[in-house]
Amino acid sequence: MKIVIDGMGGDNAPKSNVEGVVDAIKEYNVDLIVTGDKELLEKEFSNYEFDRSKLEIIHTTEVIENEDKPVKAIRSKKDASMVIALRLVKEGKADAVVSAGNTGALLAGGLFVVGRIKGIDRPCLCPAMPNAKHGMTLIADGGANADCKPRNLVEFAAMSNIYSKKVLGIENPRLALANVGIEEGKGNDLVKKSYEELKKLDLNFIGNVEARDAINACTDIIVCDGFTGNILLKSVEGVAMSVMKLIKETILSSTKGKMGAMLIKSDLQKLKSFMDYAEYGGAPLLGVDGGVIKAHGSSNAKAIKNAINQGIKFAQGNVVEDIKEVVKKIEEQNKEEK
Amino acid sequence: MKIVIDGMGGDNAPKSNVEGVVDAIKEYNVDLIVTGDKELLEKEFSNYEFDRSKLEIIHTTEVIENEDKPVKAIRSKKDASMVIALRLVKEGKADAVVSAGNTGALLAGGLFVVGRIKGIDRPCLCPAMPNAKHGMTLIADGGANADCKPRNLVEFAAMSNIYSKKVLGIENPRLALANVGIEEGKGNDLVKKSYEELKKLDLNFIGNVEARDAINACTDIIVCDGFTGNILLKSVEGVAMSVMKLIKETILSSTKGKMGAMLIKSDLQKLKSFMDYAEYGGAPLLGVDGGVIKAHGSSNAKAIKNAINQGIKFAQGNVVEDIKEVVKKIEEQNKEEK
Repeated sequence: MKIVIDGMGGDNAPKSNVEGVVDAIKEYNVDLIVTGDKELLEKEFSNYEFDRSKLEIIHTTEVIENEDKPVKAIRSKKDASMVIALRLVKEGKADAVVSAGNTGALLAGGLFVVGRIKGIDRPCLCPAMPNAKHGMTLIADGGANADCKPRNLVEFAAMSNIYSKKVLGIENPRLALANVGIEEGKGNDLVKKSYEELKKLDLNFIGNVEARDAINACTDIIVCDGFTGNILLKSVEGVAMSVMKLIKETILSSTKGKMGAMLIKSDLQKLKSFMDYAEYGGAPLLGVDGGVIKAHGSSNAKAIKNAINQGIKFAQGNVVEDIKEVVKKIEEQNKEEK
Repeated sequence: MKIVIDGMGGDNAPKSNVEGVVDAIKEYNVDLIVTGDKELLEKEFSNYEFDRSKLEIIHTTEVIENEDKPVKAIRSKKDASMVIALRLVKEGKADAVVSAGNTGALLAGGLFVVGRIKGIDRPCLCPAMPNAKHGMTLIADGGANADCKPRNLVEFAAMSNIYSKKVLGIENPRLALANVGIEEGKGNDLVKKSYEELKKLDLNFIGNVEARDAINACTDIIVCDGFTGNILLKSVEGVAMSVMKLIKETILSSTKGKMGAMLIKSDLQKLKSFMDYAEYGGAPLLGVDGGVIKAHGSSNAKAIKNAINQGIKFAQGNVVEDIKEVVKKIEEQNKEEK
């Protein structure tokens, strides 16, 4: 098995990418390919001692920047580290790709370079959100598709279910629709129709989940359109950060509070690490014909290493093959109904 | 001026409603009507000393419960405290109504009893969300309309703008669209089209706001469909509560932390009160032909008193007349464009 890492993607590239790759080779004994500026990468790798036989560097001359228009960048920067990495997956030379680069470009590249799985209408990005039970909750779709049809939500559910089982090791993942109330019949047109469709599938569909409870680990997967997923994900991220900041400000505004703060500092640090996205690696792009893992733009070495581990599990778990099978099943079911 | 209060609506009715009414009479010297079971209400009011000449009780025999189906309840329970209160506004016998009862029923009653303002397609519920700058941010729509057209979002913006000026006293309210990115052109179809329309209006439209920043007071009003508004509002509420709880758990898990907790207790209490929805009264239903204020279901006396104050300002500010004028302006502008 081989995993390819976009060596130039991310705010801390190539430094964190290289360090993450070294750590992954040491921890998982896996064969890795890194794409990017060979000279720059070699220099970075020379700082570490590790088994060089596990590493291949493929020289590329271009980099897709965060400011680049996604589709245009994928089409015009043909020798970008991200494009070459995606191509290796397409050509079967790598089993999965990890990139911390431009999210839109990676989504576009997943579609145009790797390609959709036949029968899947829209691939979805599937990030994990830390929950209050110190676990994580998948959001499917977390932002790839702003406008969705019920068919899309059904596919997101089926695909994230497989990912949750195979990569996260959850035996019988609970799936819920993000909604404005828990009762059946609540919500907008999309959610109401999707509810009907999801009931028919062989999934552990537990109904609706309100945004208020999204963080409470009452479901393993939250199914929604990408607009809603983004709103949910980012509001959780924003509020968690703001509340922590407010608490700090409030406590430090009194002398008594300052003394208290010294005593609880290490405990709050623990809490902060639980809310740290780096712990959870990256988000898979599900529905394309290969493993594509989007690591956070600000990934440090640990996040890159964790994302590589996700890529390994993704490949070992035959996630793509399982999605192909479930697509067939859904198609057959739809035929029978007609 | 007269404000009518649904004496039987809310989890703590009639006790908190009565106490809130007494406090409002004392603080604002306003004439109030309370609808509900007269005997029960008289008994509650007998616990307080206040200027009885400011209070009128109208006896009603039915109550709309939280479990009642909204439209059916409004139509069948004709002598419900909520329905009679709404009717007083319709008939011009009261300037605004405050209810902490069944939200869906109040929305339905706003439409069917009070009636829409001519030219407004869909009224919106406009709750306030506490923000990290110790102020509040309006959400328009906060949950009345799950499916929206761009026209609706334009109306939500125009109406909440007036409310923000006249009731909250904000001179030139900033309005932003809830979106997945700040750049123009981001988002789903609804948001993209609404952006175009909002640019044309005479509003302080500042573009898109990401959910991550919704809590950071970077805008006074967040414009969105009611599904998105509900997701945003409830995730903020849920996360704030969960993070506070997590902090408590984390701190109390160590001896050092327990000592620290004693020192910061009063500071955290301050923070909790900032996140307390009761401080902010209720949410107006904008676009109906009268003042309709929805107080939180779990309103205590303070929340009821604050909601009554909102009703007073709503009436004094001629919000309904202003909305009627702005509707005309938008209609004229649309005609000119055609």
